[in-house]
Amino acid sequence: MGRFDPIMKTTAGEIAKLVEGALIRGEAGAVLTNFAALDQADETCVSFYGNPKYREQLQSTRAGLVLVPDGEVSVAEGVALVVVANPVIAFDRIVRQYGVKASAFTAGVSSAASLHPGAQLDRDAVSIAGNAFVSSGAQIGKGTRIGAGAVIGEDAVVGEDCIIGANVTICQGCIIGDRVILHPGVVVGADGFGFEFIDGRHRKIEQLGIVRIGDDVEVGASSTIDRARFGETVIGEGTKIDNQVQIGHNCIIGKHCLIVAQSGISGSTRIGDYVTLAAQCGIAGHLFIADRVTFGARSGVIASIREPGGTYFGYPARPFKEDRREAMRLKQLGRLFRRVKALESGTLEGSGEAG
Amino acid sequence: MGRFDPIMKTTAGEIAKLVEGALIRGEAGAVLTNFAALDQADETCVSFYGNPKYREQLQSTRAGLVLVPDGEVSVAEGVALVVVANPVIAFDRIVRQYGVKASAFTAGVSSAASLHPGAQLDRDAVSIAGNAFVSSGAQIGKGTRIGAGAVIGEDAVVGEDCIIGANVTICQGCIIGDRVILHPGVVVGADGFGFEFIDGRHRKIEQLGIVRIGDDVEVGASSTIDRARFGETVIGEGTKIDNQVQIGHNCIIGKHCLIVAQSGISGSTRIGDYVTLAAQCGIAGHLFIADRVTFGARSGVIASIREPGGTYFGYPARPFKEDRREAMRLKQLGRLFRRVKALESGTLEGSGEAG
Amino acid sequence: MGRFDPIMKTTAGEIAKLVEGALIRGEAGAVLTNFAALDQADETCVSFYGNPKYREQLQSTRAGLVLVPDGEVSVAEGVALVVVANPVIAFDRIVRQYGVKASAFTAGVSSAASLHPGAQLDRDAVSIAGNAFVSSGAQIGKGTRIGAGAVIGEDAVVGEDCIIGANVTICQGCIIGDRVILHPGVVVGADGFGFEFIDGRHRKIEQLGIVRIGDDVEVGASSTIDRARFGETVIGEGTKIDNQVQIGHNCIIGKHCLIVAQSGISGSTRIGDYVTLAAQCGIAGHLFIADRVTFGARSGVIASIREPGGTYFGYPARPFKEDRREAMRLKQLGRLFRRVKALESGTLEGSGEAG
Repeated sequence: MGRFDPIMKTTAGEIAKLVEGALIRGEAGAVLTNFAALDQADETCVSFYGNPKYREQLQSTRAGLVLVPDGEVSVAEGVALVVVANPVIAFDRIVRQYGVKASAFTAGVSSAASLHPGAQLDRDAVSIAGNAFVSSGAQIGKGTRIGAGAVIGEDAVVGEDCIIGANVTICQGCIIGDRVILHPGVVVGADGFGFEFIDGRHRKIEQLGIVRIGDDVEVGASSTIDRARFGETVIGEGTKIDNQVQIGHNCIIGKHCLIVAQSGISGSTRIGDYVTLAAQCGIAGHLFIADRVTFGARSGVIASIREPGGTYFGYPARPFKEDRREAMRLKQLGRLFRRVKALESGTLEGSGEAG
Repeated sequence: MGRFDPIMKTTAGEIAKLVEGALIRGEAGAVLTNFAALDQADETCVSFYGNPKYREQLQSTRAGLVLVPDGEVSVAEGVALVVVANPVIAFDRIVRQYGVKASAFTAGVSSAASLHPGAQLDRDAVSIAGNAFVSSGAQIGKGTRIGAGAVIGEDAVVGEDCIIGANVTICQGCIIGDRVILHPGVVVGADGFGFEFIDGRHRKIEQLGIVRIGDDVEVGASSTIDRARFGETVIGEGTKIDNQVQIGHNCIIGKHCLIVAQSGISGSTRIGDYVTLAAQCGIAGHLFIADRVTFGARSGVIASIREPGGTYFGYPARPFKEDRREAMRLKQLGRLFRRVKALESGTLEGSGEAG
Repeated sequence: MGRFDPIMKTTAGEIAKLVEGALIRGEAGAVLTNFAALDQADETCVSFYGNPKYREQLQSTRAGLVLVPDGEVSVAEGVALVVVANPVIAFDRIVRQYGVKASAFTAGVSSAASLHPGAQLDRDAVSIAGNAFVSSGAQIGKGTRIGAGAVIGEDAVVGEDCIIGANVTICQGCIIGDRVILHPGVVVGADGFGFEFIDGRHRKIEQLGIVRIGDDVEVGASSTIDRARFGETVIGEGTKIDNQVQIGHNCIIGKHCLIVAQSGISGSTRIGDYVTLAAQCGIAGHLFIADRVTFGARSGVIASIREPGGTYFGYPARPFKEDRREAMRLKQLGRLFRRVKALESGTLEGSGEAG
């Protein structure tokens, strides 16, 4: 033990109050000074149970207190329990209250920042770090932070209360909404990949459109979103994009989508609202994906999906059931070979499984 | 409508003249003030038909004028038509003429740039943005732009008329040809991934070679090209690389290749000229790929291909026909199980399909 | 020839001495002035034979001298031979001795760097390039270099003798050990991808933990390692990570692992020591991988592996033998269709292969 230095001083009762939960086991006055995952916690820690994968850990945890959903009581003896509607959210509230705070907004422009005189911003309402670069004609909304080494291109527009991370690049003319978070290394508005093959050489098709990012979008580290050939590449309001995601030129991504790490979407594809791509997916170009479609990890999508709401897997991506059925058949393939051999030798092997 | 603010003022006749096409339907004097994709255009817009996937949109478009290839007339009534050899190229000419212009070259070195006194460049012939960093011994050719936050390492050489994007890193000693475009976040010349396992630890093999990039190469945002262990990693003239591509140490990539987003090529592989990798491909190390080979999206290549010109798919990559044949068999697998079951029960199901 | 400008002046005898090998063929006084790969070398060059894939090149090489392992003598006539225990390591010694040197450590802080007055470092013991940015409370150990454009966040700790490349971002509070190398574009400590879906919107779960990177870790260009939701994301001592790798929040990666390019590990997964991921692997979240497990390229891991030391392939990843068996069956599938057809038509085709 001993590895948990106290980072807070609170009690089981106060925790229950903070998360609007019910203390169903344990003393209200028990002191808690840290928080940790179920398998790492000791008796000084608050922990939580938010995923059935961790049921075993829940039974053996040495945490002082665990946040659990209603009905969950198979927890090691001596562990205090607080029942809440959503343990993930409840724990987030505790972490926000007592954890290391993300650095706060501090208005001002560093003397080591490079601002073009033609940049449009209120120096007393934005926060611009050293080595940030803001080009001519760029607009920065109030409450927005621009990280060190970030580059805001000519005539680009960044809305209010955004967090633009270190070493981000927003290219010329691109438009970013309000409350957008771009993590370090993101590139918004590099040229789309467009060439025509003429006389043995790939001739560049000029990419003169922009990227438009809606309000409340978050984009993970080192993701890239290409500018349109003409018109706009669009990321809809509330969509969350993870690290190392690639969005091709002229894509139109709907609202409130989730696009997990290392996925890529080729040019001119349109994606509806509430679509989820798990990690390492790929979607070909010029396709249409309906609302609320979900793709499993590594799906490779080569045809449009016009029916909303389905779940797809595999490459080429197909409905979940079909994918499972094929996986099952592949598992039984060795047996099928033996069955055919038995038929050939005039004997019957086994009975009619898996027909 | 109304969402298309006028960005140009021209006529159907002038458009036909600009693209050297023939106005085969519509009035030469019809005024056009914008351009857009077929399904987004209104009657003020020029559009184009460059991909059969959009035939349906062509039939229902409300564009004022559409550029079409010879022989294509199934277009909504009332839409003016201009016939051209290549609508993609023709439209590009219009976008270049009337669209938002990419920012022009302006000679000069920003006072906020960091130039080592030992850097070799003509301050009146290059354009170096604020927060760019040019190291000792680095050479920058005339007509070349270095973006904000870009870092040019010691003794690196950048040719003439290049565009080096914001936050690009070109490491020590690497050599970039003329008219090369490196989009934001590209890293040229980081160490290759080379270790020997000795006494329970991975000992670093020094990476002391360079990267040499030929003329007219374009590299997409956040792609990485590693320096050779010794000698050179080479990207041949005219090759175009998309975003988030990884090229390992000592690779030799031929001329006029296309390497689409999120593909990776492992160390010491040699690739011929005019090779195409669609998105998310992987090629193992120490292989040889002949000229004009094409890989479908997500191909995983684990053996050399010595015959030029073929098309390959799958993992492990195989000739297109083989890949199709296997995909077809997998589709018929459920039926095969049923056929075997029927044989086992002494009845014959169906007839001889797909043998 | 002539393309090999002399970069050294040594002899076969001196080379043998340097690498502690035995000159078993050729004259000790033969002059050597360069080094190169087997198929590129001419008679002025030292080369080496370190991989059986190059046996053919070994037989036809025109190198002046080749480093070979014991027992290897099928080399073109007239080529001098030096026998060593490990030709890769021996060649590395020659390259280090005679090759282009990586730039040496030079203590000092560039006047173009931005150091917060609250940063903790010894200006005479660190090397900080122009346009680097060191935030308040950050600590930089002695012997460490910070590249141009790199950003060290508030309260971040970087150990001794590290090389932090150009345009790297180390976010707030993250902790980097000694002798760590972060190549250009790496992002350490961006927010993990964590949201809860509430009332039709993805609500951000605050990510308030850190990243802790052990001693002697190397991380390739543009890789991203996310901060923990709370607690720590950990990269164990001696682990080597290639380019464009993504490590999710709260992952715990063991010691001396190898994670090859474009692989991704989802959040909260724990990986043992000496684990190898070949290129383009993916591991799902909340899994456990035992020590010394090896994954072939593109493996997709969706279940924990509790047995140490195995080799796995495919998606879903399975033991190597199983994967080979399934691949074999797929190859024989066309034949199986024909065998079933033959049974249906009452004839027997072939005999009992591959049942």
